[in-house]
Amino acid sequence: MRATLMYGAGDVRVETIADPSLQKPTDAIVRVVRSCVCGSDLHPYHGIPAQEHGMQTGHEFLGIVEQAGSDVSTVKAGDLVVASFSHQDNTCEFCRAGVQTACSHPEFGFFSAAQAELVRVPLADGTLYQLPADTGTALLPSLLTLADVYGTGYHAAKQARVTGGDTVAVIGDGAVGLLAVLSAKQLGAERIILMGRHKARTDLGREFGATDVVAERGEEGIALVRELTGGGAHKVLEAVGHRPAYDQAVGIVRAGGIISRVGVPQYDEAPVGFTSLFGRNITLNGGPAPVRAYIDELLPGILDGTVEPGKVFDRTVTIDEVPDAYRAMDDREVLKALIQF
Amino acid sequence: MRATLMYGAGDVRVETIADPSLQKPTDAIVRVVRSCVCGSDLHPYHGIPAQEHGMQTGHEFLGIVEQAGSDVSTVKAGDLVVASFSHQDNTCEFCRAGVQTACSHPEFGFFSAAQAELVRVPLADGTLYQLPADTGTALLPSLLTLADVYGTGYHAAKQARVTGGDTVAVIGDGAVGLLAVLSAKQLGAERIILMGRHKARTDLGREFGATDVVAERGEEGIALVRELTGGGAHKVLEAVGHRPAYDQAVGIVRAGGIISRVGVPQYDEAPVGFTSLFGRNITLNGGPAPVRAYIDELLPGILDGTVEPGKVFDRTVTIDEVPDAYRAMDDREVLKALIQF
Repeated sequence: MRATLMYGAGDVRVETIADPSLQKPTDAIVRVVRSCVCGSDLHPYHGIPAQEHGMQTGHEFLGIVEQAGSDVSTVKAGDLVVASFSHQDNTCEFCRAGVQTACSHPEFGFFSAAQAELVRVPLADGTLYQLPADTGTALLPSLLTLADVYGTGYHAAKQARVTGGDTVAVIGDGAVGLLAVLSAKQLGAERIILMGRHKARTDLGREFGATDVVAERGEEGIALVRELTGGGAHKVLEAVGHRPAYDQAVGIVRAGGIISRVGVPQYDEAPVGFTSLFGRNITLNGGPAPVRAYIDELLPGILDGTVEPGKVFDRTVTIDEVPDAYRAMDDREVLKALIQF
Repeated sequence: MRATLMYGAGDVRVETIADPSLQKPTDAIVRVVRSCVCGSDLHPYHGIPAQEHGMQTGHEFLGIVEQAGSDVSTVKAGDLVVASFSHQDNTCEFCRAGVQTACSHPEFGFFSAAQAELVRVPLADGTLYQLPADTGTALLPSLLTLADVYGTGYHAAKQARVTGGDTVAVIGDGAVGLLAVLSAKQLGAERIILMGRHKARTDLGREFGATDVVAERGEEGIALVRELTGGGAHKVLEAVGHRPAYDQAVGIVRAGGIISRVGVPQYDEAPVGFTSLFGRNITLNGGPAPVRAYIDELLPGILDGTVEPGKVFDRTVTIDEVPDAYRAMDDREVLKALIQF
């Protein structure tokens, strides 16, 4: 099969490698119909050292079940399915509590080989979600966002307990930030301030429900949001992951409010003391999104056209064009690239 | 009046100073019946530089209203009242949201002159809570805990959203930690692990509802709690405030769990990245307790004898003995000293 491999920073290649095969009776093999490139794929694209053997890449995909192991009961060959970016049993204590990204099953993990024609899916019953067969291709981009970015934006808003009348600030205008805007809107936020600097993206953010856009960063951005909100936003959804975004979140959150992070932190320590979080009773939460838990809630709005999260895809490429898609996303020329097979 | 003043680290004196007087029509003057020394009073007792003019001390008291300003409508001279350790209007947006310790009124603040015969109370209507006149003296110690330590322990448990069936770990066997145990029990926790090293205190913790006591600290303590709980406690109530207690909380919390802090952080930065909080979707919250918000909930249990939080007082002193009470608490000879007038 054709698959994407990374050999070092900036070095992405598409090669023909061996097809994956069932390794356990709980596995399935999926023939990928749509995959994509994630903002988080750019972290290794910037940072990994050169290596002799390429590493497969990608964690978002939907496709057709090619083969299901003998213990797989919820999907069968021929089914259209979307996978969460983590593979989990969906039955353990943590999965039942809605924290699928802390599943205690030994085979729990995150996909890392989904930018390819075929994907082996561990724990298929807990990971694959059967989609209606007759959705038509126009809905596939939106359905693919259930694999990660829509569920992750929704996790940010759910963890922040966004509710009617809230003022919400979203930090970051990447796909997750924009879908956090959409999610906050769905959960009833009254005012949604999107902090981002790329007009094409913030325009989509306005379409998704942002009522205000703040392009300024740092102290200037903090002062603006505090002024707009009369002292800070009730809920701050942080969809970047760099330390300045954390500091911005602390600066713009209202006393008693919540900072919900879904941007993977690229830092370890940060202020949590009296003047940052404690003194004002700020809650800090978030983490890797248990997107499998949210598909039931989010799918109907996609199917009936209420929402179109697939608008975050602004370029479609073939598998052989994936290296250029990485470059284009890294250059901020493209928001999110869809891979069509 | 007789009042306690601090002149430097370890230097507490009781002197006769001028009586306080009404400064605003919203003020009241309270003649103190019971006050006490708080664990947090030991921070300046350790650290403040020597000063020419002593600073008054103390933030917990109950007493009889001596004089009420012309705009005070909810209490009058002769009423028995308890004050929250913060003074607030109890009507602003933040107070209405239950975050009285972030009140936006210009006179909002924390008491710092309550170890004295008389206290001036700003914003008396939002700060004083009228108690039944006929409670008798035996209940006064428990009623006094509504001013801070009981409400603060309760805040820890409420912020952690302790609910039926939870496994809760409490870090710290001071008065707040012990009352966090009592609060967790009241909210339905099934198992309560108290981390503390002083047997007299942990024995009281068992009486308040602790099912297990772990005296070990650091990595050893973490390993023990993780073993006892099969992977960590759902909720961790941190009632110490020093950085090792934070690290312990991170080490013993279960994936998807909550760390609720009420110990005033004596540190600024701490780990919040992938391996500490983010990767396991841990929530960090807590802060200065809005104890005024909890009196309605906590008072009935004291009045009907269901709970006796006043058991945290293990020595009673006169105002003139307060300097020795500081020393005795600092030497861990006394858990919490009650001042009887």
